[in-house]
Amino acid sequence: MESTTNTGIISFFGAEQGPWKIASMQTLIGAPLPEANCLNIQQSAITPDQNSDAKWILRGFISNLRYTHRSEKTMLDAHSKPLGRAAYHAAALIPIQKSKECWNLAQDERRRIFEEDSKHIQQSAEYLQYISRQLHHSRDLGEAFDFLTWFEFAPEHTEKFDALCAILRKTEEWQYVTREIDIRLLK
Amino acid sequence: MESTTNTGIISFFGAEQGPWKIASMQTLIGAPLPEANCLNIQQSAITPDQNSDAKWILRGFISNLRYTHRSEKTMLDAHSKPLGRAAYHAAALIPIQKSKECWNLAQDERRRIFEEDSKHIQQSAEYLQYISRQLHHSRDLGEAFDFLTWFEFAPEHTEKFDALCAILRKTEEWQYVTREIDIRLLK
Repeated sequence: MESTTNTGIISFFGAEQGPWKIASMQTLIGAPLPEANCLNIQQSAITPDQNSDAKWILRGFISNLRYTHRSEKTMLDAHSKPLGRAAYHAAALIPIQKSKECWNLAQDERRRIFEEDSKHIQQSAEYLQYISRQLHHSRDLGEAFDFLTWFEFAPEHTEKFDALCAILRKTEEWQYVTREIDIRLLK
Repeated sequence: MESTTNTGIISFFGAEQGPWKIASMQTLIGAPLPEANCLNIQQSAITPDQNSDAKWILRGFISNLRYTHRSEKTMLDAHSKPLGRAAYHAAALIPIQKSKECWNLAQDERRRIFEEDSKHIQQSAEYLQYISRQLHHSRDLGEAFDFLTWFEFAPEHTEKFDALCAILRKTEEWQYVTREIDIRLLK
């Protein structure tokens, strides 16, 4: 029988126990998530009935680049650092939802907002030396959030990460954000 | 508990019984799928253990447009016809896989191949009056195929559909196709 068994879906869930201690959960836009002590990450699409301990479950998958041009990809590939670095004990999970208006735009309109107007890649570039990150897509799965971005960094670079967040939150792109929660974690 | 229950995933599966009779399965590139009599479509992510009757299961989801520019979207929105038209008794499911090389390209490079080089949208436009279609994305789910495109048309327009397929299969874009099966169906 031809069928795959692994869906490529990753689940992030808040619970009493888990490898990442939740230091804070700050709701910036829209409805909050229930409080939780710890964050768990599982390489499968878990469901509430499988995890009665979970306070919330957020699911997403890693995809190909959807807005990045060749010159930007070459720069990102040269400067990005992989996740899991020994000194990077601090992390952040930032679930974001964007407006329906944004999703009804054409590809070239979304690209213009993302980079030509907001300079998302250009302004983030200098932070790649301090911060590792991985974007997960959720909207295609019918999830409440559209993106789950996972960041790792050394605790002493928390101010750098805060500065990056502040820059992005002032952009044209963020005018389309309808829900955002900033979850900070320590290992 | 905050969690969604519907994943937005649609399953196409071949079996002995089902609403769509499989008229032919033509493997154009790469490995074939096992023969099946009928096609079923289910609005959930079914697994082999849930469907012992299934010969194969292909899963995908509907997403936002990833390559279409504003002028093209305006044209498509004006001319596209919805699925499920009474006279459209014929259908085709065409699962396609593209090369790793293709997926490692940047967004602007993939767009150039898709439209500037291959004129995928421009050359398909005149067929919108005869053929309804819906693209499903599979690659992000770790599936064997990257795309499952579903087409519906009146049986008397089968030659129009064949002509459209012939045009697309001659494009630069199709140089990156590593597996393709053309499944024709009748209701």
